[in-house]
Amino acid sequence: MALIALTTDFGTTDAFVGVMKGVIAARAPGVVVIDVTHGVPAQDVRAGALILRHAVPYFPAGTVHVAVVDPGVGSARRPLCVETEHAVLLGPDNGLLSLAATSETIRRIVHLTEERFFRTPRSATFHGRDVFAPVAAAVATGTPVSSLGPEVSDMERIHLPPLVREDAGLRGQILYADHFGNLVTNIPADALPARCTIQICGTRIRGVAPSYSAGAPGMPLAVVNSWDVLEIAVRDGSARERLGAAVGEPVLVVPD
Amino acid sequence: MALIALTTDFGTTDAFVGVMKGVIAARAPGVVVIDVTHGVPAQDVRAGALILRHAVPYFPAGTVHVAVVDPGVGSARRPLCVETEHAVLLGPDNGLLSLAATSETIRRIVHLTEERFFRTPRSATFHGRDVFAPVAAAVATGTPVSSLGPEVSDMERIHLPPLVREDAGLRGQILYADHFGNLVTNIPADALPARCTIQICGTRIRGVAPSYSAGAPGMPLAVVNSWDVLEIAVRDGSARERLGAAVGEPVLVVPD
Amino acid sequence: MALIALTTDFGTTDAFVGVMKGVIAARAPGVVVIDVTHGVPAQDVRAGALILRHAVPYFPAGTVHVAVVDPGVGSARRPLCVETEHAVLLGPDNGLLSLAATSETIRRIVHLTEERFFRTPRSATFHGRDVFAPVAAAVATGTPVSSLGPEVSDMERIHLPPLVREDAGLRGQILYADHFGNLVTNIPADALPARCTIQICGTRIRGVAPSYSAGAPGMPLAVVNSWDVLEIAVRDGSARERLGAAVGEPVLVVPD
Repeated sequence: MALIALTTDFGTTDAFVGVMKGVIAARAPGVVVIDVTHGVPAQDVRAGALILRHAVPYFPAGTVHVAVVDPGVGSARRPLCVETEHAVLLGPDNGLLSLAATSETIRRIVHLTEERFFRTPRSATFHGRDVFAPVAAAVATGTPVSSLGPEVSDMERIHLPPLVREDAGLRGQILYADHFGNLVTNIPADALPARCTIQICGTRIRGVAPSYSAGAPGMPLAVVNSWDVLEIAVRDGSARERLGAAVGEPVLVVPD
Repeated sequence: MALIALTTDFGTTDAFVGVMKGVIAARAPGVVVIDVTHGVPAQDVRAGALILRHAVPYFPAGTVHVAVVDPGVGSARRPLCVETEHAVLLGPDNGLLSLAATSETIRRIVHLTEERFFRTPRSATFHGRDVFAPVAAAVATGTPVSSLGPEVSDMERIHLPPLVREDAGLRGQILYADHFGNLVTNIPADALPARCTIQICGTRIRGVAPSYSAGAPGMPLAVVNSWDVLEIAVRDGSARERLGAAVGEPVLVVPD
Repeated sequence: MALIALTTDFGTTDAFVGVMKGVIAARAPGVVVIDVTHGVPAQDVRAGALILRHAVPYFPAGTVHVAVVDPGVGSARRPLCVETEHAVLLGPDNGLLSLAATSETIRRIVHLTEERFFRTPRSATFHGRDVFAPVAAAVATGTPVSSLGPEVSDMERIHLPPLVREDAGLRGQILYADHFGNLVTNIPADALPARCTIQICGTRIRGVAPSYSAGAPGMPLAVVNSWDVLEIAVRDGSARERLGAAVGEPVLVVPD
């Protein structure tokens, strides 16, 4: 049986996630369920898409990922299944699945219309429980993706901000801030010049450090992080707080 | 073997929950443990009872639920096991189990007195670890509920605020606020008139929307939620913050 | 197969922990993973060491504990495996493992140098994913600890503040504050006089109460907690907030 992995903005202070797991346990006894995270910022589809994209590759082939960041739940937005070479992705058609899906080869996209796989009655507010968890249980126990509904040719896609090559250097921005206050940029490691200075929020950071601990305590530094992109951090502290930076903040990389 | 599900106010920043799982793993190897939530507001027995009541039905029959919101731990309050037609509920006798128990047919209520199922020595501050986790492990691995202690005829019960029919309409109140700031009322969907206006905190909401996404961003709306009761929400926002409402806030439903 | 238990400061709002579990699931299918906690205060090695020390004894013998609170990730600090009579501990050599290790008999300490057990490529910022999770998967599936690298004779150790016997009584301090705001001291239960008064933040507490519920609501009380040390709590409230106390706050126990 396949693993099921869950990525949502449901938090863990309510029982939303627990109830989804109860539904899965009832329909797919013995299936292992792993939490990717339930701490996606509420209704932030792009943050959820980024997290999912950087988590899926580390899971076993064939893992069934349920992702729910779904401000449009109960509306006409479609519930989807995207099958790639490595994974099965279930979630709303709002872009949430798109970064993970397009980083691999897509085999098929299916519109989940076969209601026999859903819970009955189905609420208008909690498709994690009533649609995605039961469909995941079905897929994990062997139901072919092709039987979940008709194949479709398109899905909503998230467009990440472009990396801009300017005269002064490379202009990117902060995409995501993590639990430690580390600021994750959209600048890939392989776009970085051998020697450079990074400018953010009026601060200049000389060079890319080999690790967090290379900096002085409390001082901003730049590293290549575990997503293999440039990240701004503060040794033993929070770059978000130290720099007052938020998602969207411009970052300039100037070759030395 | 049965599943064990955990509902507590222990949070997840300490190791309370992890230690309970260690105790269960040592005594019932291979038993699957699912977190309902550990985010019940600290010492809020009523909130815990509501969460448990709306989670239990989604778990497989025979699931052993351990619920611990227990300001009276170490005092004379009894530890209980309530066996219903669908589930086994373990927790303190302070009302926490009562809403889940009375929503089904109760088979028996047992006072947990058989200390041979407890950990030794037993602390006065952490019965989740020393009483409820080991008893759950025993039940999940086949110990009959009847051997846990003497049957008793009563338990403490939570009394939810009544729904009041007034000349103006139906008067209820906010019972619970979730992670998204959605405000959950005590007004069941089947008590709602076909057309109505909802009044809360000086705001009037026209009609019950089919889904969260039916509202304008930032505006309060009313929906029937996944507990099948009236809920006040804000599209892409928090109704709790937008309205400044808290648990206990009156809600009036006026037929149009 | 052995259990794997995880103790980190990664929080649960990002996918760090989920990704570690994905790596483990891919390399050790079917191994059970239990979260001790991911809520260790960021980069607080001592708090992590205390939590781990008080969690390990409750897990089954042979459990593989992965602990990551690692401000020095990517630097020259060594990754270690400490095998004790009861457990296998994996983590950075910064003291994090030391309290758990020295509370039992240590069999061997191994410097993790055998890179064939690591993920490739290995990031400089996330050894939880690239070093400790894959090594844990190897150990849980039967790889002998002795094959992970050379045995070493020493490790970094955390030194807890001493308990001082003064003319006035016993002087200790607050070591840790939990989710409820309970203040955990370094004063073991067996060092407490039969009758005493506790002084903290200018407040005097008469005697050690048998349980949290023995106090008046809102009033500070002292109990012996589940770590078997003196703890300052507030009935139905937070001692941390009520007393304005933090980690390091002195506590004096005066015999009556």
